[in-house]
Amino acid sequence: MRYAILAGGKRVRPILCLAVCELVGGEERLAIPAACSVEMIHTMSLIKDDLPCMDNDDLRRGKPTTHKVFGENVAIHSGYALLTLAFERLTEADVSSERIVRTVKELAKAIGTKGLVAGQAMDLSSEGSGQNDVGLLEKLEFIHVHKTGSLLEASAVIGGGSEEEIEKVRNFARCIGLLFQVVDDILDVTKSSAELGKTAGKDQIAGKLTYPKVLGLEKSKEFVVRLKNDAKEHLKGFDSEKVKPLIVLTNFIANRNN
Amino acid sequence: MRYAILAGGKRVRPILCLAVCELVGGEERLAIPAACSVEMIHTMSLIKDDLPCMDNDDLRRGKPTTHKVFGENVAIHSGYALLTLAFERLTEADVSSERIVRTVKELAKAIGTKGLVAGQAMDLSSEGSGQNDVGLLEKLEFIHVHKTGSLLEASAVIGGGSEEEIEKVRNFARCIGLLFQVVDDILDVTKSSAELGKTAGKDQIAGKLTYPKVLGLEKSKEFVVRLKNDAKEHLKGFDSEKVKPLIVLTNFIANRNN
Repeated sequence: MRYAILAGGKRVRPILCLAVCELVGGEERLAIPAACSVEMIHTMSLIKDDLPCMDNDDLRRGKPTTHKVFGENVAIHSGYALLTLAFERLTEADVSSERIVRTVKELAKAIGTKGLVAGQAMDLSSEGSGQNDVGLLEKLEFIHVHKTGSLLEASAVIGGGSEEEIEKVRNFARCIGLLFQVVDDILDVTKSSAELGKTAGKDQIAGKLTYPKVLGLEKSKEFVVRLKNDAKEHLKGFDSEKVKPLIVLTNFIANRNN
Repeated sequence: MRYAILAGGKRVRPILCLAVCELVGGEERLAIPAACSVEMIHTMSLIKDDLPCMDNDDLRRGKPTTHKVFGENVAIHSGYALLTLAFERLTEADVSSERIVRTVKELAKAIGTKGLVAGQAMDLSSEGSGQNDVGLLEKLEFIHVHKTGSLLEASAVIGGGSEEEIEKVRNFARCIGLLFQVVDDILDVTKSSAELGKTAGKDQIAGKLTYPKVLGLEKSKEFVVRLKNDAKEHLKGFDSEKVKPLIVLTNFIANRNN
Protein backbone atom coordinates (compact mmCIF):
# COMPACT_ATOMS: atom_id res chain seq x y z
CA MET A 1 0.00 0.00 0.00
CA ARG A 2 2.79 2.41 0.92
CA TYR A 3 4.81 1.49 -2.16
CA ALA A 4 1.90 2.23 -4.48
CA ILE A 5 0.58 5.40 -2.91
CA LEU A 6 3.94 6.97 -2.06
CA ALA A 7 5.44 6.29 -5.49
CA GLY A 8 4.93 9.91 -6.47
CA GLY A 9 2.24 10.92 -8.89
CA LYS A 10 0.92 14.39 -9.55
CA ARG A 11 -1.61 14.44 -6.66
CA VAL A 12 -3.95 16.37 -8.93
CA ARG A 13 -7.06 14.69 -7.51
CA PRO A 14 -6.42 15.49 -3.83
CA ILE A 15 -5.43 19.05 -4.72
CA LEU A 16 -8.68 19.38 -6.67
CA CYS A 17 -10.56 18.09 -3.60
CA LEU A 18 -9.08 20.78 -1.38
CA ALA A 19 -9.75 23.49 -3.94
CA VAL A 20 -13.36 22.35 -4.42
CA CYS A 21 -13.95 22.34 -0.66
CA GLU A 22 -12.69 25.93 -0.44
CA LEU A 23 -14.69 26.84 -3.53
CA VAL A 24 -17.96 26.09 -1.74
CA GLY A 25 -16.85 27.95 1.38
CA GLY A 26 -15.39 25.10 3.47
CA GLU A 27 -12.03 25.23 5.21
CA GLU A 28 -9.25 23.30 3.48
CA ARG A 29 -8.59 21.09 6.52
CA LEU A 30 -12.16 19.68 6.37
CA ALA A 31 -11.42 18.12 3.00
CA ILE A 32 -8.11 16.48 3.97
CA PRO A 33 -9.77 13.11 4.74
CA ALA A 34 -11.72 13.24 1.44
CA ALA A 35 -8.56 14.24 -0.43
CA CYS A 36 -6.67 11.28 1.06
CA SER A 37 -9.58 8.96 0.28
CA VAL A 38 -9.69 10.05 -3.33
CA GLU A 39 -5.94 9.47 -3.76
CA MET A 40 -6.25 6.02 -2.13
CA ILE A 41 -9.11 5.12 -4.47
CA HIS A 42 -7.13 6.40 -7.45
CA THR A 43 -4.10 4.35 -6.37
CA MET A 44 -6.28 1.25 -5.93
CA SER A 45 -7.56 1.74 -9.46
CA LEU A 46 -4.00 2.01 -10.82
CA ILE A 47 -2.86 -1.15 -8.99
CA LYS A 48 -5.87 -2.94 -10.43
CA ASP A 49 -5.48 -1.56 -13.97
CA ASP A 50 -1.87 -2.72 -14.10
CA LEU A 51 -2.62 -6.35 -13.13
CA PRO A 52 -1.70 -9.09 -15.63
CA CYS A 53 -5.40 -9.88 -16.22
CA MET A 54 -6.16 -6.18 -16.88
CA ASP A 55 -3.68 -3.96 -18.80
CA ASN A 56 -0.70 -6.12 -17.76
CA ASP A 57 1.64 -3.21 -17.20
CA ASP A 58 5.16 -3.27 -15.73
CA LEU A 59 5.75 0.45 -15.27
CA ARG A 60 3.84 3.09 -13.30
CA ARG A 61 4.97 6.51 -12.12
CA GLY A 62 8.42 5.56 -13.40
CA LYS A 63 8.71 2.48 -11.17
CA PRO A 64 7.88 -1.21 -11.48
CA THR A 65 4.16 -1.80 -10.84
CA THR A 66 3.02 -3.10 -7.44
CA HIS A 67 2.39 -6.66 -8.58
CA LYS A 68 5.82 -6.76 -10.25
CA VAL A 69 7.48 -5.98 -6.91
CA PHE A 70 5.23 -7.78 -4.41
CA GLY A 71 3.38 -10.36 -6.49
CA GLU A 72 -0.20 -10.39 -7.75
CA ASN A 73 -1.86 -11.53 -4.55
CA VAL A 74 -0.26 -8.82 -2.42
CA ALA A 75 -1.16 -6.25 -5.08
CA ILE A 76 -4.82 -7.30 -5.07
CA HIS A 77 -4.99 -7.32 -1.26
CA SER A 78 -3.38 -3.85 -1.22
CA GLY A 79 -6.06 -2.56 -3.55
CA TYR A 80 -8.85 -3.89 -1.32
CA ALA A 81 -7.20 -2.49 1.79
CA LEU A 82 -6.72 0.94 0.18
CA LEU A 83 -10.36 1.06 -0.84
CA THR A 84 -11.39 0.13 2.69
CA LEU A 85 -9.04 2.67 4.26
CA ALA A 86 -10.53 5.32 1.98
CA PHE A 87 -13.93 4.78 3.61
CA GLU A 88 -12.45 4.59 7.09
CA ARG A 89 -10.62 7.89 6.57
CA LEU A 90 -13.82 9.63 5.46
CA THR A 91 -15.47 8.85 8.79
CA GLU A 92 -12.77 10.96 10.48
CA ALA A 93 -13.69 14.22 8.75
CA ASP A 94 -14.40 17.03 11.22
CA VAL A 95 -17.92 17.72 9.93
CA SER A 96 -21.40 16.61 11.04
CA SER A 97 -22.31 12.92 10.85
CA GLU A 98 -25.04 13.81 8.35
CA ARG A 99 -22.44 15.26 6.01
CA ILE A 100 -20.11 12.27 6.47
CA VAL A 101 -22.91 9.80 5.66
CA ARG A 102 -23.74 11.68 2.47
CA THR A 103 -20.05 11.80 1.52
CA VAL A 104 -19.65 8.05 2.05
CA LYS A 105 -22.72 7.50 -0.12
CA GLU A 106 -21.54 9.84 -2.91
CA LEU A 107 -18.08 8.32 -2.89
CA ALA A 108 -19.46 4.77 -2.98
CA LYS A 109 -21.61 5.73 -5.97
CA ALA A 110 -18.60 7.32 -7.65
CA ILE A 111 -16.71 4.01 -7.37
CA GLY A 112 -19.22 1.19 -7.81
CA THR A 113 -21.35 -0.21 -10.61
CA LYS A 114 -22.35 3.27 -11.73
CA GLY A 115 -18.87 4.73 -11.25
CA LEU A 116 -15.17 4.02 -11.51
CA VAL A 117 -15.45 0.23 -11.55
CA ALA A 118 -18.18 0.35 -14.21
CA GLY A 119 -15.96 2.63 -16.28
CA GLN A 120 -12.95 0.36 -15.98
CA ALA A 121 -14.94 -2.77 -16.71
CA MET A 122 -16.37 -1.16 -19.83
CA ASP A 123 -12.91 0.11 -20.78
CA LEU A 124 -11.63 -3.48 -20.82
CA SER A 125 -14.63 -4.80 -22.68
CA SER A 126 -14.08 -2.11 -25.34
CA GLU A 127 -10.68 -3.50 -26.28
CA GLY A 128 -10.56 -4.54 -29.89
CA SER A 129 -13.57 -2.38 -30.85
CA GLY A 130 -13.60 -1.12 -34.42
CA GLN A 131 -13.12 2.52 -35.37
CA ASN A 132 -16.57 3.23 -36.73
CA ASP A 133 -18.94 1.57 -34.28
CA VAL A 134 -22.12 3.48 -33.58
CA GLY A 135 -22.17 5.21 -30.19
CA LEU A 136 -18.41 5.00 -29.66
CA LEU A 137 -18.17 8.57 -28.41
CA GLU A 138 -21.03 8.08 -25.97
CA LYS A 139 -19.33 4.92 -24.75
CA LEU A 140 -16.00 6.71 -24.33
CA GLU A 141 -17.69 9.51 -22.46
CA PHE A 142 -19.44 7.06 -20.16
CA ILE A 143 -16.17 5.28 -19.41
CA HIS A 144 -14.18 8.35 -18.56
CA VAL A 145 -16.75 10.48 -16.82
CA HIS A 146 -17.15 7.45 -14.57
CA LYS A 147 -13.48 6.62 -14.28
CA THR A 148 -12.29 9.92 -12.93
CA GLY A 149 -15.07 12.47 -12.96
CA SER A 150 -17.25 11.55 -10.02
CA LEU A 151 -14.82 11.69 -7.13
CA LEU A 152 -14.92 15.44 -6.57
CA GLU A 153 -18.52 15.74 -5.44
CA ALA A 154 -17.58 14.31 -2.05
CA SER A 155 -15.44 17.39 -1.38
CA ALA A 156 -18.28 19.73 -2.27
CA VAL A 157 -20.48 17.87 0.21
CA ILE A 158 -17.80 17.90 2.93
CA GLY A 159 -17.23 21.62 2.34
CA GLY A 160 -20.92 22.28 2.96
CA GLY A 161 -21.89 23.32 -0.57
CA SER A 162 -25.52 24.05 -1.41
CA GLU A 163 -27.33 21.67 -3.79
CA GLU A 164 -26.83 24.21 -6.59
CA GLU A 165 -23.10 24.45 -5.85
CA ILE A 166 -22.74 20.67 -5.67
CA GLU A 167 -24.46 20.42 -9.07
CA LYS A 168 -22.00 22.93 -10.56
CA VAL A 169 -19.07 21.00 -9.07
CA ARG A 170 -20.50 17.80 -10.55
CA ASN A 171 -20.56 19.35 -14.02
CA PHE A 172 -17.07 20.81 -13.56
CA ALA A 173 -15.86 17.38 -12.41
CA ARG A 174 -17.35 15.68 -15.47
CA CYS A 175 -15.42 18.00 -17.78
CA ILE A 176 -12.25 17.45 -15.75
CA GLY A 177 -12.70 13.68 -15.85
CA LEU A 178 -13.04 13.71 -19.63
CA LEU A 179 -10.24 16.26 -20.01
CA PHE A 180 -7.90 14.06 -18.02
CA GLN A 181 -8.60 11.11 -20.25
CA VAL A 182 -8.47 12.83 -23.62
CA VAL A 183 -5.07 14.25 -22.66
CA ASP A 184 -3.95 10.81 -21.42
CA ASP A 185 -4.99 9.26 -24.72
CA ILE A 186 -3.14 11.92 -26.69
CA LEU A 187 0.02 11.54 -24.61
CA ASP A 188 -0.11 7.77 -25.04
CA VAL A 189 0.36 8.18 -28.81
CA THR A 190 2.66 11.23 -28.81
CA LYS A 191 5.13 10.63 -25.95
CA SER A 192 7.75 8.02 -25.01
CA SER A 193 7.61 5.71 -21.97
CA ALA A 194 10.51 7.63 -20.41
CA GLU A 195 8.62 10.92 -20.74
CA LEU A 196 5.42 9.43 -19.31
CA GLY A 197 6.83 7.29 -16.50
CA LYS A 198 4.53 4.54 -17.76
CA THR A 199 4.41 2.36 -20.85
CA ALA A 200 3.61 4.47 -23.92
CA GLY A 201 1.63 3.24 -26.90
CA LYS A 202 -0.06 0.50 -24.90
CA ASP A 203 -3.62 1.65 -25.76
CA GLN A 204 -2.93 1.04 -29.42
CA ILE A 205 -1.39 -2.37 -28.75
CA ALA A 206 -4.40 -3.38 -26.63
CA GLY A 207 -6.76 -2.11 -29.35
CA LYS A 208 -8.37 0.15 -26.76
CA LEU A 209 -11.09 2.65 -27.49
CA THR A 210 -9.34 6.04 -27.29
CA TYR A 211 -10.10 9.57 -28.43
CA PRO A 212 -7.32 9.75 -31.03
CA LYS A 213 -8.60 6.46 -32.43
CA VAL A 214 -12.21 7.62 -32.66
CA LEU A 215 -11.76 11.34 -33.43
CA GLY A 216 -8.23 11.47 -34.84
CA LEU A 217 -5.38 13.38 -33.19
CA GLU A 218 -6.29 16.88 -34.40
CA LYS A 219 -9.95 16.71 -33.40
CA SER A 220 -8.88 15.24 -30.03
CA LYS A 221 -6.71 18.30 -29.44
CA GLU A 222 -9.64 20.56 -30.32
CA PHE A 223 -11.78 18.60 -27.87
CA VAL A 224 -9.20 19.33 -25.13
CA VAL A 225 -9.64 23.06 -25.73
CA ARG A 226 -13.43 22.76 -25.64
CA LEU A 227 -13.45 20.74 -22.42
CA LYS A 228 -11.03 23.18 -20.80
CA ASN A 229 -13.38 26.06 -21.61
CA ASP A 230 -16.49 24.14 -20.57
CA ALA A 231 -14.88 23.25 -17.22
CA LYS A 232 -14.14 26.92 -16.53
CA GLU A 233 -17.68 27.84 -17.57
CA HIS A 234 -19.09 25.71 -14.71
CA LEU A 235 -17.04 27.70 -12.21
CA LYS A 236 -18.85 30.93 -13.00
CA GLY A 237 -20.83 32.40 -10.12
CA PHE A 238 -18.32 31.27 -7.47
CA ASP A 239 -15.99 33.64 -5.60
CA SER A 240 -13.35 34.64 -8.15
CA GLU A 241 -10.44 34.24 -5.70
CA LYS A 242 -11.50 30.69 -4.85
CA VAL A 243 -11.94 29.80 -8.50
CA LYS A 244 -8.31 30.70 -9.30
CA PRO A 245 -6.60 27.48 -8.11
CA LEU A 246 -9.16 25.42 -10.04
CA ILE A 247 -8.43 27.40 -13.21
CA VAL A 248 -4.72 26.79 -12.72
CA LEU A 249 -5.36 23.05 -12.21
CA THR A 250 -7.63 22.88 -15.25
CA ASN A 251 -4.91 24.46 -17.37
CA PHE A 252 -2.33 22.12 -15.86
CA ILE A 253 -4.43 19.05 -16.70
CA ALA A 254 -5.01 20.30 -20.26
CA ASN A 255 -1.38 21.25 -20.93
CA ARG A 256 0.55 18.53 -19.06
CA ASN A 257 3.25 16.53 -20.80
CA ASN A 258 3.20 13.37 -18.70
CA MET B 1 -21.79 -9.79 -8.73
CA ARG B 2 -25.20 -11.45 -8.92
CA TYR B 3 -23.70 -14.81 -9.91
CA ALA B 4 -21.37 -14.81 -6.91
CA ILE B 5 -23.74 -13.56 -4.24
CA LEU B 6 -26.83 -15.44 -5.40
CA ALA B 7 -25.00 -18.76 -5.78
CA GLY B 8 -26.48 -20.00 -2.52
CA GLY B 9 -24.40 -20.31 0.59
CA LYS B 10 -25.59 -20.74 4.14
CA ARG B 11 -26.19 -17.01 4.85
CA VAL B 12 -24.93 -17.62 8.37
CA ARG B 13 -23.25 -14.20 8.62
CA PRO B 14 -26.31 -12.09 7.71
CA ILE B 15 -28.52 -14.21 9.98
CA LEU B 16 -26.01 -13.63 12.79
CA CYS B 17 -26.17 -9.89 12.07
CA LEU B 18 -29.94 -9.82 12.47
CA ALA B 19 -29.80 -11.91 15.65
CA VAL B 20 -27.09 -9.68 17.16
CA CYS B 21 -29.09 -6.54 16.39
CA GLU B 22 -32.10 -8.03 18.19
CA LEU B 23 -29.86 -9.22 21.01
CA VAL B 24 -28.94 -5.64 21.91
CA GLY B 25 -32.57 -4.50 21.67
CA GLY B 26 -32.69 -3.23 18.06
CA GLU B 27 -35.42 -4.12 15.57
CA GLU B 28 -34.42 -6.73 12.99
CA ARG B 29 -35.19 -4.39 10.06
CA LEU B 30 -32.53 -1.91 11.23
CA ALA B 31 -29.82 -4.50 10.64
CA ILE B 32 -30.92 -5.52 7.13
CA PRO B 33 -28.46 -3.11 5.44
CA ALA B 34 -25.62 -4.32 7.71
CA ALA B 35 -26.59 -7.95 7.08
CA CYS B 36 -26.51 -7.37 3.31
CA SER B 37 -23.19 -5.54 3.61
CA VAL B 38 -21.62 -8.38 5.55
CA GLU B 39 -22.75 -10.95 2.97
CA MET B 40 -21.40 -8.75 0.14
CA ILE B 41 -18.06 -8.45 1.91
CA HIS B 42 -17.99 -12.18 2.54
CA THR B 43 -18.76 -12.84 -1.15
CA MET B 44 -16.03 -10.41 -2.20
CA SER B 45 -13.57 -12.31 -0.01
CA LEU B 46 -14.60 -15.64 -1.58
CA ILE B 47 -14.24 -14.30 -5.14
CA LYS B 48 -10.80 -13.01 -4.19
CA ASP B 49 -9.70 -16.17 -2.36
CA ASP B 50 -10.57 -18.30 -5.37
CA LEU B 51 -8.50 -16.27 -7.87
CA PRO B 52 -5.65 -18.05 -9.69
CA CYS B 53 -3.06 -15.94 -7.83
CA MET B 54 -4.66 -16.80 -4.47
CA ASP B 55 -6.05 -20.30 -3.78
CA ASN B 56 -6.72 -20.95 -7.49
CA ASP B 57 -10.01 -22.72 -6.94
CA ASP B 58 -12.52 -23.89 -9.56
CA LEU B 59 -15.45 -24.77 -7.32
CA ARG B 60 -17.44 -22.71 -4.83
CA ARG B 61 -20.87 -23.37 -3.36
CA GLY B 62 -21.11 -26.29 -5.75
CA LYS B 63 -20.66 -24.12 -8.85
CA PRO B 64 -17.72 -22.98 -10.98
CA THR B 65 -15.99 -19.99 -9.34
CA THR B 66 -16.70 -16.47 -10.62
CA HIS B 67 -13.41 -16.08 -12.50
CA LYS B 68 -13.95 -19.47 -14.17
CA VAL B 69 -17.27 -18.27 -15.60
CA PHE B 70 -16.59 -14.57 -16.30
CA GLY B 71 -12.80 -14.31 -16.43
CA GLU B 72 -10.34 -12.94 -13.93
CA ASN B 73 -10.78 -9.27 -14.70
CA VAL B 74 -14.57 -9.36 -14.33
CA ALA B 75 -14.17 -11.33 -11.08
CA ILE B 76 -11.79 -8.72 -9.64
CA HIS B 77 -14.02 -5.83 -10.69
CA SER B 78 -17.02 -7.63 -9.14
CA GLY B 79 -15.15 -7.91 -5.86
CA TYR B 80 -14.36 -4.20 -5.80
CA ALA B 81 -17.93 -3.29 -6.71
CA LEU B 82 -19.36 -5.58 -4.00
CA LEU B 83 -17.09 -4.02 -1.38
CA THR B 84 -18.17 -0.56 -2.49
CA LEU B 85 -21.85 -1.51 -2.53
CA ALA B 86 -21.44 -2.84 1.01
CA PHE B 87 -20.49 0.65 2.20
CA GLU B 88 -23.20 2.30 0.12
CA ARG B 89 -25.84 -0.01 1.57
CA LEU B 90 -24.79 0.81 5.14
CA THR B 91 -25.55 4.48 4.58
CA GLU B 92 -29.19 3.51 3.98
CA ALA B 93 -29.78 2.07 7.46
CA ASP B 94 -32.74 3.68 9.21
CA VAL B 95 -30.75 4.83 12.25
CA SER B 96 -29.10 8.12 13.24
CA SER B 97 -26.19 9.44 11.13
CA GLU B 98 -23.94 9.13 14.19
CA ARG B 99 -24.65 5.43 14.39
CA ILE B 100 -24.12 4.96 10.63
CA VAL B 101 -20.75 6.73 10.76
CA ARG B 102 -19.61 4.48 13.59
CA THR B 103 -20.84 1.40 11.72
CA VAL B 104 -18.95 2.42 8.56
CA LYS B 105 -15.83 2.89 10.67
CA GLU B 106 -16.19 -0.45 12.51
CA LEU B 107 -16.85 -2.29 9.27
CA ALA B 108 -13.88 -0.65 7.54
CA LYS B 109 -11.67 -1.69 10.44
CA ALA B 110 -13.08 -5.21 10.28
CA ILE B 111 -12.03 -5.44 6.61
CA GLY B 112 -8.78 -3.50 6.21
CA THR B 113 -5.17 -3.87 7.31
CA LYS B 114 -6.25 -4.87 10.81
CA GLY B 115 -9.10 -7.09 9.62
CA LEU B 116 -10.22 -9.47 6.91
CA VAL B 117 -7.65 -8.44 4.31
CA ALA B 118 -4.83 -8.68 6.87
CA GLY B 119 -6.04 -12.15 7.81
CA GLN B 120 -6.21 -13.30 4.21
CA ALA B 121 -2.83 -11.84 3.34
CA MET B 122 -1.28 -13.62 6.34
CA ASP B 123 -3.14 -16.81 5.43
CA LEU B 124 -1.43 -16.81 2.04
CA SER B 125 1.97 -15.95 3.47
CA SER B 126 1.60 -18.89 5.91
CA GLU B 127 1.49 -21.42 3.10
CA GLY B 128 4.31 -23.92 3.38
CA SER B 129 4.92 -23.18 7.08
CA GLY B 130 6.32 -26.07 9.09
CA GLN B 131 4.34 -27.91 11.76
CA ASN B 132 6.36 -26.89 14.78
CA ASP B 133 6.98 -23.19 14.27
CA VAL B 134 6.87 -21.05 17.37
CA GLY B 135 3.70 -18.96 17.65
CA LEU B 136 1.76 -20.93 15.05
CA LEU B 137 -1.40 -21.01 17.13
CA GLU B 138 -1.26 -17.28 17.80
CA LYS B 139 -0.77 -16.73 14.08
CA LEU B 140 -3.72 -18.97 13.23
CA GLU B 141 -5.88 -17.17 15.75
CA PHE B 142 -4.89 -13.79 14.33
CA ILE B 143 -5.74 -14.91 10.82
CA HIS B 144 -9.16 -16.27 11.60
CA VAL B 145 -10.38 -13.86 14.21
CA HIS B 146 -9.63 -11.25 11.57
CA LYS B 147 -11.01 -13.19 8.64
CA THR B 148 -14.51 -13.74 9.92
CA GLY B 149 -14.79 -12.56 13.49
CA SER B 150 -14.97 -8.81 13.29
CA LEU B 151 -17.95 -8.26 11.04
CA LEU B 152 -20.63 -8.67 13.69
CA GLU B 153 -19.82 -5.62 15.76
CA ALA B 154 -21.41 -3.39 13.14
CA SER B 155 -24.79 -4.97 13.88
CA ALA B 156 -24.42 -4.36 17.60
CA VAL B 157 -23.70 -0.70 16.83
CA ILE B 158 -26.66 -0.42 14.42
CA GLY B 159 -28.92 -2.07 16.97
CA GLY B 160 -27.99 0.59 19.50
CA GLY B 161 -26.06 -1.65 21.93
CA SER B 162 -24.30 -0.11 24.94
CA GLU B 163 -20.48 -0.13 25.00
CA GLU B 164 -20.62 -3.10 27.38
CA GLU B 165 -22.97 -4.99 25.07
CA ILE B 166 -20.83 -4.21 22.01
CA GLU B 167 -17.80 -5.56 23.89
CA LYS B 168 -19.64 -8.81 24.69
CA VAL B 169 -20.70 -9.14 21.05
CA ARG B 170 -17.08 -8.56 20.01
CA ASN B 171 -15.93 -11.44 22.22
CA PHE B 172 -18.78 -13.65 21.02
CA ALA B 173 -17.87 -12.79 17.43
CA ARG B 174 -14.21 -13.70 18.00
CA CYS B 175 -15.19 -17.16 19.21
CA ILE B 176 -17.56 -17.57 16.27
CA GLY B 177 -14.86 -16.49 13.82
CA LEU B 178 -12.44 -19.05 15.17
CA LEU B 179 -15.13 -21.71 15.45
CA PHE B 180 -16.06 -21.22 11.81
CA GLN B 181 -12.48 -21.71 10.75
CA VAL B 182 -11.57 -24.68 12.93
CA VAL B 183 -14.66 -26.49 11.62
CA ASP B 184 -13.76 -25.48 8.03
CA ASP B 185 -10.25 -26.88 8.51
CA ILE B 186 -11.62 -30.14 9.94
CA LEU B 187 -14.13 -30.54 7.10
CA ASP B 188 -11.39 -29.90 4.53
CA VAL B 189 -9.57 -33.06 5.68
CA THR B 190 -12.61 -35.24 6.53
CA LYS B 191 -15.13 -34.58 3.73
CA SER B 192 -15.26 -34.94 -0.05
CA SER B 193 -15.58 -32.11 -2.57
CA ALA B 194 -19.12 -33.27 -3.39
CA GLU B 195 -20.14 -33.06 0.27
CA LEU B 196 -18.56 -29.60 0.68
CA GLY B 197 -19.57 -27.96 -2.59
CA LYS B 198 -15.97 -26.77 -2.83
CA THR B 199 -12.64 -28.45 -3.44
CA ALA B 200 -11.74 -30.68 -0.48
CA GLY B 201 -8.19 -31.33 0.71
CA LYS B 202 -6.88 -28.14 -0.86
CA ASP B 203 -5.42 -26.75 2.40
CA GLN B 204 -3.11 -29.74 2.61
CA ILE B 205 -2.06 -29.42 -1.02
CA ALA B 206 -1.32 -25.72 -0.54
CA GLY B 207 0.63 -26.52 2.63
CA LYS B 208 -1.63 -24.11 4.49
CA LEU B 209 -1.49 -23.49 8.21
CA THR B 210 -4.59 -25.25 9.59
CA TYR B 211 -5.79 -26.41 13.00
CA PRO B 212 -5.62 -30.16 12.21
CA LYS B 213 -2.07 -29.60 10.98
CA VAL B 214 -0.98 -27.73 14.11
CA LEU B 215 -3.11 -29.44 16.79
CA GLY B 216 -3.98 -32.76 15.18
CA LEU B 217 -7.54 -33.81 14.31
CA GLU B 218 -8.63 -34.92 17.81
CA LYS B 219 -7.42 -31.82 19.62
CA SER B 220 -9.02 -29.68 16.88
CA LYS B 221 -12.36 -31.35 17.61
CA GLU B 222 -11.89 -30.65 21.33
CA PHE B 223 -11.13 -27.03 20.45
CA VAL B 224 -14.47 -26.84 18.60
CA VAL B 225 -16.28 -27.86 21.78
CA ARG B 226 -14.37 -25.30 23.85
CA LEU B 227 -15.04 -22.46 21.41
CA LYS B 228 -18.71 -23.39 21.24
CA ASN B 229 -18.96 -23.15 25.03
CA ASP B 230 -16.91 -19.94 25.20
CA ALA B 231 -19.14 -18.32 22.58
CA LYS B 232 -22.25 -19.14 24.61
CA GLU B 233 -20.53 -17.85 27.76
CA HIS B 234 -20.26 -14.36 26.20
CA LEU B 235 -24.03 -14.30 25.66
CA LYS B 236 -24.76 -14.46 29.38
CA GLY B 237 -26.53 -11.44 30.79
CA PHE B 238 -28.59 -10.83 27.64
CA ASP B 239 -32.35 -11.49 27.40
CA SER B 240 -32.67 -15.29 27.27
CA GLU B 241 -35.28 -15.24 24.48
CA LYS B 242 -33.02 -13.11 22.28
CA VAL B 243 -30.03 -15.32 22.98
CA LYS B 244 -31.82 -18.43 21.66
CA PRO B 245 -31.30 -17.89 17.90
CA LEU B 246 -27.60 -17.21 18.53
CA ILE B 247 -27.26 -20.45 20.49
CA VAL B 248 -28.91 -22.33 17.61
CA LEU B 249 -26.55 -20.67 15.12
CA THR B 250 -23.51 -21.41 17.28
CA ASN B 251 -24.49 -25.08 17.43
CA PHE B 252 -25.13 -25.08 13.69
CA ILE B 253 -21.68 -23.64 12.97
CA ALA B 254 -20.02 -26.17 15.30
CA ASN B 255 -21.92 -29.20 13.99
CA ARG B 256 -22.23 -28.42 10.28
CA ASN B 257 -21.15 -30.96 7.67
CA ASN B 258 -20.39 -28.64 4.77
